[in-house]
Amino acid sequence: MAEAPTNLNELFMHTLKDVYYAENQITKALPKMAAKATSAELRKGFETHLTETKQQIKRLEQVFKLCGEKPSGEKCPAIEGILEEGAELMSEIKPGETLDAAMIAAAQAVEHYEIARYGALVAWAKELGMTDARNLLRDTLGEEKDTDSKLNRLAEDKLNKKAA
Amino acid sequence: MAEAPTNLNELFMHTLKDVYYAENQITKALPKMAAKATSAELRKGFETHLTETKQQIKRLEQVFKLCGEKPSGEKCPAIEGILEEGAELMSEIKPGETLDAAMIAAAQAVEHYEIARYGALVAWAKELGMTDARNLLRDTLGEEKDTDSKLNRLAEDKLNKKAA
Repeated sequence: MAEAPTNLNELFMHTLKDVYYAENQITKALPKMAAKATSAELRKGFETHLTETKQQIKRLEQVFKLCGEKPSGEKCPAIEGILEEGAELMSEIKPGETLDAAMIAAAQAVEHYEIARYGALVAWAKELGMTDARNLLRDTLGEEKDTDSKLNRLAEDKLNKKAA
Repeated sequence: MAEAPTNLNELFMHTLKDVYYAENQITKALPKMAAKATSAELRKGFETHLTETKQQIKRLEQVFKLCGEKPSGEKCPAIEGILEEGAELMSEIKPGETLDAAMIAAAQAVEHYEIARYGALVAWAKELGMTDARNLLRDTLGEEKDTDSKLNRLAEDKLNKKAA
């Protein structure tokens, strides 16, 4: 950690850098996941989420600007671990229905990580009276929840049945 | 990974071992988090969740038994990263309101990880026709979602206000 936060404002900034790092790592992972997908629908899902993630990074940059700070990331062991686990599955399972089911679950772990982080940021921004930042972060939180629901439906309605 | 899963059944078993490892790591982290909590309510929340986690481990052991397997864990980089990030915050931020806010957010990241993992296990158990296992896993999934909501309320109604 660069500097230990001593108040909620600094904790907000620390977490903002954490999630900025995470989103940038995710943009590197998603094309690899898309390339390994057997289901065309899953591949398209990863590609769409990549576009969304790039938009979410722009929103984070706006939040940095609102806080009078330059965008910067802070290495975050949580997202590294989550993505490492997904990469391990991708390197060991042969492409096909089982890997598709594994990748969708790995993507949902990423989504849930982001839901937790953006959820905290939205709550803290509210407490700190940062209305504009809160609105931007809330837009992303909503998108992450939608992506998780879409992945759920794709898994339950289609991909798990193929894998079973 | 011990052996790469080649079908949904093996992916289910791999993920079961992953979450069994994660829950056991969580039982080690929770007492440390409780000890660092300033808010009595937050400390009690961590202690209650420790009791629940032990019950969830027993349920996982029942699922292993239903599958005719001995309970065993498989090292999981995701939960290691999530817990490492929480431990970093605990070692660097002085106990007080800011650390309470940080720990509650760290605990929610853990909950969301579990929600993602149990969500996948429940869906796969359904697809595999494992009704008893599915019911046990669904009970835990419900508890994890409840814990996340309780942490949300505690953060938003009380702890964030103190930290702000």
